[in-house]
Amino acid sequence: MTDPAIRPIAIIGGTGPAGTGLALRWARAGETVIIGSRDAARAEQTAEIIRTRAGAKAQVSGMENSAACATSNLLVLTVPFEGQAALLKQLKTAMRQGSILIDATVPLAASVGGRASRTIGVWQGSAAQQTAELVPKGVAVAAAFHNVSADVLNSDADVDCDVIVCSDDPNAMQIAMELATKIPRVRALDGGKLENARLVEQITALLIGLNIRHQGHGGIRITGFPDAVYKTSWIS
Amino acid sequence: MTDPAIRPIAIIGGTGPAGTGLALRWARAGETVIIGSRDAARAEQTAEIIRTRAGAKAQVSGMENSAACATSNLLVLTVPFEGQAALLKQLKTAMRQGSILIDATVPLAASVGGRASRTIGVWQGSAAQQTAELVPKGVAVAAAFHNVSADVLNSDADVDCDVIVCSDDPNAMQIAMELATKIPRVRALDGGKLENARLVEQITALLIGLNIRHQGHGGIRITGFPDAVYKTSWIS
Repeated sequence: MTDPAIRPIAIIGGTGPAGTGLALRWARAGETVIIGSRDAARAEQTAEIIRTRAGAKAQVSGMENSAACATSNLLVLTVPFEGQAALLKQLKTAMRQGSILIDATVPLAASVGGRASRTIGVWQGSAAQQTAELVPKGVAVAAAFHNVSADVLNSDADVDCDVIVCSDDPNAMQIAMELATKIPRVRALDGGKLENARLVEQITALLIGLNIRHQGHGGIRITGFPDAVYKTSWIS
Repeated sequence: MTDPAIRPIAIIGGTGPAGTGLALRWARAGETVIIGSRDAARAEQTAEIIRTRAGAKAQVSGMENSAACATSNLLVLTVPFEGQAALLKQLKTAMRQGSILIDATVPLAASVGGRASRTIGVWQGSAAQQTAELVPKGVAVAAAFHNVSADVLNSDADVDCDVIVCSDDPNAMQIAMELATKIPRVRALDGGKLENARLVEQITALLIGLNIRHQGHGGIRITGFPDAVYKTSWIS
């Protein structure tokens, strides 16, 4: 990473499929990862499972969410939308000044009892912008990792997907893009301002609908740009 | 095409970049194409340009929009969003029973003086659903071709993009997917119900923002499904 002080990676609400999948990939890439959960014991159990899968050298531990926030300057939020706002309010005092929070939340209609192939409108425009409103001043927010299949992340397969990152903070943008490229075959693309997260979040609902109809684990690739535009670990 | 009676292809509002690009590709594929415009003379001029580009055998003519509707059972709508509703109301009596209308409209904020990298909310949920509300009974609507770069369509390059088709009508879905595969390298994917057009329309705004920031002609590919899921002219 550009800034080695931005470590370890704390995955808040990290015991679900997206959180464990990202943790597995980053642990394999040699990153130190903290799994955060409401329940410290559950976080530790999940960390143990990831350590077993990622190999003997994997550095993965589990903590209660606020302890994880207090231990790291790099937070990744992977909670269902229905839990997002309440959790952020609860963690507000635990987050450190200068932290970066990468939000992967998608406002699926499933969060209000509807379908996962539909979204609901968020007053702020996107789940990521809701997050930006709820974090303390001095915490920079990026939106990323919405469209990467949790099933694929939790497998041993390469991830055939681009990660579009949106942020108003250049450092958060940079860090999120670098984190993305630690996952084999993922390419990262600067998606512009945080407000654009609403466009990227919607794609997840589309992919979920495609998954249901066509029995797959959908991802996206953006075409039509020179390779230099992407941050990538697999194109030279 | 599955049904040879669903011809020729009439591109309503077809003198803009998207319309001319699609017309060029379909003319090259041997389809008979009518360019529709408010102004018959302008439609004829555009048709002449496309004929010149597509080759001696190209069958492209130009007509006033309502005449084009009255001549074809397969309509493709490629107008800016700000002109969509008024044009459809005007053409209501000209459209034939049993027609299929393929809507490529994207509700960009540019239509109300805003940015082309943002969208506006449409009461019905999407531009395509607005169209479905405005066409006469007996006209089936599909949404498609939103994300294909007009610049690339108007070039000689292959089109590195998937076309996600949304429709509540199985025949319209089928025809739109087949039309997509007439463009070299395009793959077509069943995107489900017409209401999902709102997700696909949003992607265009994302791609326009990426084009502005990164100087390219963005497209998308959906990954993670077996090849059999796509209708395609380029994967066996």
